[in-house]
This record gives sequence, C-alpha cells and structure tokens, in this order.
Amino acid sequence: MSEAEVDFQPRDLDSVRVVLTRPIYSGNIGSVCRAMGNMGLKDLVLAGAGIADLDEARMMACGARGILEACRQTENLAAAVADCTLVIGATAREGLYRQHCRTPREWAPEILSAARAGRVALVFGPEDNGLDNDEIAVCSRLMRIPSSSACSSLNLSQAVLICVYEIFVAAGMFVLPPEQSAEAPSAKKERMFAMWERILLKIGFMTPDKSAHMMHGIRRIFTRGSLTDDDVRILMGIARQMEWYADNKKNFRSD
Amino acid sequence: MSEAEVDFQPRDLDSVRVVLTRPIYSGNIGSVCRAMGNMGLKDLVLAGAGIADLDEARMMACGARGILEACRQTENLAAAVADCTLVIGATAREGLYRQHCRTPREWAPEILSAARAGRVALVFGPEDNGLDNDEIAVCSRLMRIPSSSACSSLNLSQAVLICVYEIFVAAGMFVLPPEQSAEAPSAKKERMFAMWERILLKIGFMTPDKSAHMMHGIRRIFTRGSLTDDDVRILMGIARQMEWYADNKKNFRSD
Repeated sequence: MSEAEVDFQPRDLDSVRVVLTRPIYSGNIGSVCRAMGNMGLKDLVLAGAGIADLDEARMMACGARGILEACRQTENLAAAVADCTLVIGATAREGLYRQHCRTPREWAPEILSAARAGRVALVFGPEDNGLDNDEIAVCSRLMRIPSSSACSSLNLSQAVLICVYEIFVAAGMFVLPPEQSAEAPSAKKERMFAMWERILLKIGFMTPDKSAHMMHGIRRIFTRGSLTDDDVRILMGIARQMEWYADNKKNFRSD
Repeated sequence: MSEAEVDFQPRDLDSVRVVLTRPIYSGNIGSVCRAMGNMGLKDLVLAGAGIADLDEARMMACGARGILEACRQTENLAAAVADCTLVIGATAREGLYRQHCRTPREWAPEILSAARAGRVALVFGPEDNGLDNDEIAVCSRLMRIPSSSACSSLNLSQAVLICVYEIFVAAGMFVLPPEQSAEAPSAKKERMFAMWERILLKIGFMTPDKSAHMMHGIRRIFTRGSLTDDDVRILMGIARQMEWYADNKKNFRSD
C-alpha cells in the first residue's frame, strides 16, 4: 500500500503517542515536546519518572509548551501503553529476539494504518541504557534508527525526532509552498531569446555565421533550470537595456 | 537515478560540510556535532561566530567531541563555503526567489552526486532569525524541512539532524543487523504443526471432525509473521511438554 493511495488525516497523528520511559534530563523532555509539535504529534506520556526541572523542560519546549503541560505520568511502561494496539520500542541494541526490528521509515506506513483503527505507542528508554529487557518485552515491535557505527548513540530528543518526522512525512500532509511565479510559457521565452540574439549581434558579441551556435549555448545556460515569468522579465530587461545603451553610448561622458 | 544504482562511499560523506552561520547557543553547536557524528559527517564550520561556552558544547557533543575539536571558524558565510560547488541553505521563510527550494529528502541524491565530484555545504542560520537575505544569496539552492504549520520552527540541532539523516540514509550505507535466526524451512514447520495437531487431539482441545478447521486457524496465527528455526524449536518444545504432561498427568500431586 503506497503512501499516495491513503488519505491520512491529522487525527491519525493524534493517535500516535510518544512514551518516554524513565527519562533522566528535563531538558530532553522539553526538546521531545518541541520535536513532537514540529511533526504534528501531541500525546506524550512519561513512564516511571516525572520532570525534575520544569523550568528547564519549559525552556527547551519553546512553542510546544502545551504538549508539556498536557503530558501525563504513569507508574510504569505497561500502564503507559495499556490502551495501545501497536507498541513499538526504539532500541539500538542487537541480540536475540530482534527479528521484528525495522527502521522508522519502514514502520511509518504501518504505524499510520494502525493509528486509524487504534492507538499506537512509540516507546523510548532512558538516556543512559535504553529500555531494559522487561520493557522490551512489552513492545510488540522494535525499531532501530539508522546511524553510523562509529557514533551510533543518538540524543533522546534526536531519536524521537527521527521517528516522528518519518511518520509526519509518510502521512503526506506536508507540501512545499507553491512557486511564487509559474514556469514561463515557451512563446515568452522565445521572444526573450530573439531579443538577446538581436542585441548580441548588434554589440558584436557574435557574427551572423556563428549566431546559431552561440545561441544554442546561451539557451542551454538559461534553460538548465526552470525559467519563471519573473526570470524572463529580468532577462528581457537586460537585453533592452543593452540595446538602449548601445544606441545611446555616445551620450555617456564616462566613455 | 535511484539510490540502489549508485555505489556511494563513506568518503562522499566526508565531502559534505555543515556550516552554522552566527550560531548563538554553544549547547546547540555540541548537539550538532553529535548529530553529524551519528550520521557519518565530520566537517563543521562556524561562520561569523565562535563557541561562547566550550564546556557546554563539549557536554552536548558526547561521543562526537572530535568533530567539535576539529571545527573551523571563518569570518563570514562566503568564506565558509568558498571551496564548495553546491551550497544549500536551510530556510523556513517563504517569499520571492524561493523557486529552488526542496525538502532534504528530495535534495539528498543530488547532494551525494555533487559530493563525489566536489564539496557540498549545508548552511544553517542563527537560532533566532535564520539566514538573512545576503546569506541566502550565497546559497545556490534552498531546502525546507517538513514541519507542522502549527509549530514549524525546529531547534537548530534538530534541523541539522534531519538534513544529515536524509543524506546518510540516501547513501545507503546503513543496513539493519541480520536476523539472528533464519526463517525456518517449510518441512520443519510442517513437522511442528503435525505435533501440535496430534497433541491438541490427544488433550481434547478439538475433535477429529473439527481438526482441519482448527489447524487452519492455528497455522494462520503462527505464520502471520516470520517463523525462525528458534521459534519452531520453542513451539515444538511446548507441544512435546504438553504431550509429556498429558501422559504423566496422574503422577502430579497438584491435580
């Protein structure tokens, strides 16, 4: 099932919960809130620990303080995910029984599908040692964030960001702002190239026998990327000014 | 050109530079180092500003202090990217002349191609206002990180992470650790199902006239995911123990 076939709604993201298990640093909790807000999530649960330094957490949460204020605390991980139908734990460890491990990008479509029907939990362990074996047992699935083997341990909020970013992108709700100016139609570009050819011949940049070859090169340069109406207007303006200057050259004292 | 067709090398990542323009918070510089290390990059340049609090930066860099120690400082952005053939600026602003804007995922293959032939710079602005217009003019291309319109501003190190993560993933150098145990061959699974059928009949879980239907359901449950040699061994062990217990039931006092 490709992403494009499914019409994900913002409410699907509402059903994706982030669970921080025994988090140590309050700053990280705040940074996690900001990362969640950036990627359209808002349900945060802290399992087995509270926020030691609320000011620090608030500072790092920036515009996502609402997520911090609304976050809940539970006794342990099992309580934090009790109502979730899909529980995915993030782990960097390798070993036995890791057969269900995929990357966040691989999980994202399944997470979104599950979030349409129920609640999904993304579970992260403490900063120092990650999830312990009992906690991993609560997770029906595991995910591993791609990282360099030379420096594989991500900061907690960075790990959360990668996971929620992949879900946000897979949901397909982000589209780049449209171009300010549309690609210019061919006829307009041709008028522009005709102006350039006329003036480049006039100022002696090229001779008539070489003009076809030179204009080919100039077309290649100008059309390597897109050319918008604005771009064509600027290039026509340059050609017109070159022509005006060539016609009125004798009137300029500086020559 | 798909990722799979190109054989990217770790040295391609060495040619991708991260440029922080006038960074304000030392902690962010350290976090950027860690994010770069996580994703296999190491060339960091600070343009127009130094590190105010080196201890703070070192603390956040964690295992990537080597990147922090090696980072260079230049007078301004132009000097930081002077030797780069492709300069891509990260911006969240919308407006005129943003026609060259794409997402990090869209840019990643082109960044890797350019990094094979020359040096590429990923340019990030200061935490408060981002790149100014003169700095944007130095960037031949722009990129926009997908984010929720309700909370669109990412922390600096989080923005860097998304960009370098996309390049690292596109380079295709990360592969999940192989399964500890391979998928079991069909014959082994069939022996296991035959054992289950025999014992489930023996203990009266099902009658012979229903066994085909019940075994169909049991096969469906056990083969929903992959079944490794280890899994089959465990399931066979349960069947054997059930059989042993059924045969020796009378010897147990607790009954």
